[in-house]
Amino acid sequence: MNLNTISPNPDFTVSVLDQRLLPHVEQYEILRTVEDCIEAIADMWVRGAPLIGVTAAFGMAYAAREAQENEHPEGYFQSLASHLASSRPTAVNLQWAIDRQLALAAQKEMSFEALWDEAVTMLEEDAAACRRIAEHGLPLLQAIFSQTKKTVNVLTHCNAGALATVAWGTATAPVYLAHAQGIPVHVWVDETRPRNQGAHLTAWELAKAGVPHTVISDNAGGHLMQQGKVDIVITGADRVAANGDAANKIGTYLKALAAKDNDIPFYIAYPESTLDASIADGLRDIPIEERSTEEVTHIQGWDEEAAALRTVRLTPSASAAANPAFDVTPARLITGYITDSELLRP
Amino acid sequence: MNLNTISPNPDFTVSVLDQRLLPHVEQYEILRTVEDCIEAIADMWVRGAPLIGVTAAFGMAYAAREAQENEHPEGYFQSLASHLASSRPTAVNLQWAIDRQLALAAQKEMSFEALWDEAVTMLEEDAAACRRIAEHGLPLLQAIFSQTKKTVNVLTHCNAGALATVAWGTATAPVYLAHAQGIPVHVWVDETRPRNQGAHLTAWELAKAGVPHTVISDNAGGHLMQQGKVDIVITGADRVAANGDAANKIGTYLKALAAKDNDIPFYIAYPESTLDASIADGLRDIPIEERSTEEVTHIQGWDEEAAALRTVRLTPSASAAANPAFDVTPARLITGYITDSELLRP
Repeated sequence: MNLNTISPNPDFTVSVLDQRLLPHVEQYEILRTVEDCIEAIADMWVRGAPLIGVTAAFGMAYAAREAQENEHPEGYFQSLASHLASSRPTAVNLQWAIDRQLALAAQKEMSFEALWDEAVTMLEEDAAACRRIAEHGLPLLQAIFSQTKKTVNVLTHCNAGALATVAWGTATAPVYLAHAQGIPVHVWVDETRPRNQGAHLTAWELAKAGVPHTVISDNAGGHLMQQGKVDIVITGADRVAANGDAANKIGTYLKALAAKDNDIPFYIAYPESTLDASIADGLRDIPIEERSTEEVTHIQGWDEEAAALRTVRLTPSASAAANPAFDVTPARLITGYITDSELLRP
Repeated sequence: MNLNTISPNPDFTVSVLDQRLLPHVEQYEILRTVEDCIEAIADMWVRGAPLIGVTAAFGMAYAAREAQENEHPEGYFQSLASHLASSRPTAVNLQWAIDRQLALAAQKEMSFEALWDEAVTMLEEDAAACRRIAEHGLPLLQAIFSQTKKTVNVLTHCNAGALATVAWGTATAPVYLAHAQGIPVHVWVDETRPRNQGAHLTAWELAKAGVPHTVISDNAGGHLMQQGKVDIVITGADRVAANGDAANKIGTYLKALAAKDNDIPFYIAYPESTLDASIADGLRDIPIEERSTEEVTHIQGWDEEAAALRTVRLTPSASAAANPAFDVTPARLITGYITDSELLRP
């Protein structure tokens, strides 16, 4: 399941899907320089930790090439790397990808070809990791289908999909593989306020892949579970603590509670790199980012008359707003973990 | 706490607040005829079961006056009553108010004055019922304040406020009374997708009353409870079954689960008329309205550039949507019931 979120071209340019315009406009851009890569990351043409990492890896190859032409190649290369690293402050994969390319550049005399090949390798590694997540999650969907002989209803929150990665995604990976293997599957897509990654991105990529799906308000999932309309919940994770607590997009915890209350399995899908062994107790110690309140007070959508993106205000100007961006789901509510190395059911 | 949602004037006209434009524009309209009242109800200038009932009661007074001038007063009066009853198909209070006025009209020879006075009585009864809800809920907030000596943090969902009634509201009534009595109180306002009654209406009326409040996405409440930032949850109800299960705006159940998981009291506030003794098991038997999917796929907000309301699309046109409008919170998750006759803690 590859949506060409990022693809290297034979002429050593990189094509990326401009995700800012989704789901309304599908537009690809060509990256040719480190500055292009920085812009693509900072302005969120690409988003999702794995995809940001791979984009930065290509950016580092361009940085190496551009530095060769500078009077002080070493120093200029380092400064481009720092600039790239600051394009999204909190993305762990971004720094990881840059460090990996810095180490390689030290060995290979800042060879553009070596860094380009490494970026391609990282791209392939990400796709392969997501493919393994698909394979580890598939038996869960197969088992439900074997038992019910009916369409398997999956609920997901936010976008842990192909759009966040090179291909397949994490939470969506088992769904795509099941769909490809002919298992009838339908996805309930939480719209995921306040940034609407579900309504904008997950819905778009499922439609693109031809997977039946239905967008719902974040409020609706509990009712659908009470009504027996959800067989399994699968979400991604931003960070998983040593005790199994999982930080993910705000609202995930509420769905985990509803799944528990209705005896519905609740799984988290992620690559091993998401595991943060340095955090013993996730609920106590994972820091939660407070994002701009404008994401709550305003919303962006497609003005069908003007055929343009438009932002409208939702709240009274006299009202305050708050926007905690993630919450932590305690391990006691999590049935299991679908990773690139295993299917773990504690 | 009276926002003049509806007020009779000395010249026998009725002023109503046009709630369609809230929170962006505060505009009042004058109703003079039964047709005006039908339009106000059907086009949702007024909304909320109690307020709809009172508006219909004034409509019936106008119907009586207009019927006097018709060739066939009795038949015409009946036909106006039917027309009024069909202005919002599912509102229980609407039919109740019309039936009450029909019975009075039969006794009083369709006297406009008698029906006008009755409408005023019904208006006063609603305000008094909400005031009693305020008094029955106040001790809960007082007790929290006595214990913590800190601002009492209330979380509410949807709008069960003064805007849904003649004055005070139901879920908001104890909050307004506590605020008036100098108890420091702060309200977390769920925006309440898909129709955003929290962001549009509850936030507006709390701002109008000077009650400190913060609008949050519906996803945020669970996290705030985990963090100890919520002392009590109070919501309204659309229907309460004999077993105590309560139907309310979609998403209420998720907040009740989170309250239970964090040992936070969860109360439902409503007038006794909301109790439906004919339904033994709410979860099994309360029918849930499916509303237009456009409420999920599109959203209305204020275009600050154009200074106008505007609707934008949120989802891909290829994606289906679903919109269950209510859910049922099982009695086992409800700490107690704040009604106009008592504070009930089972």
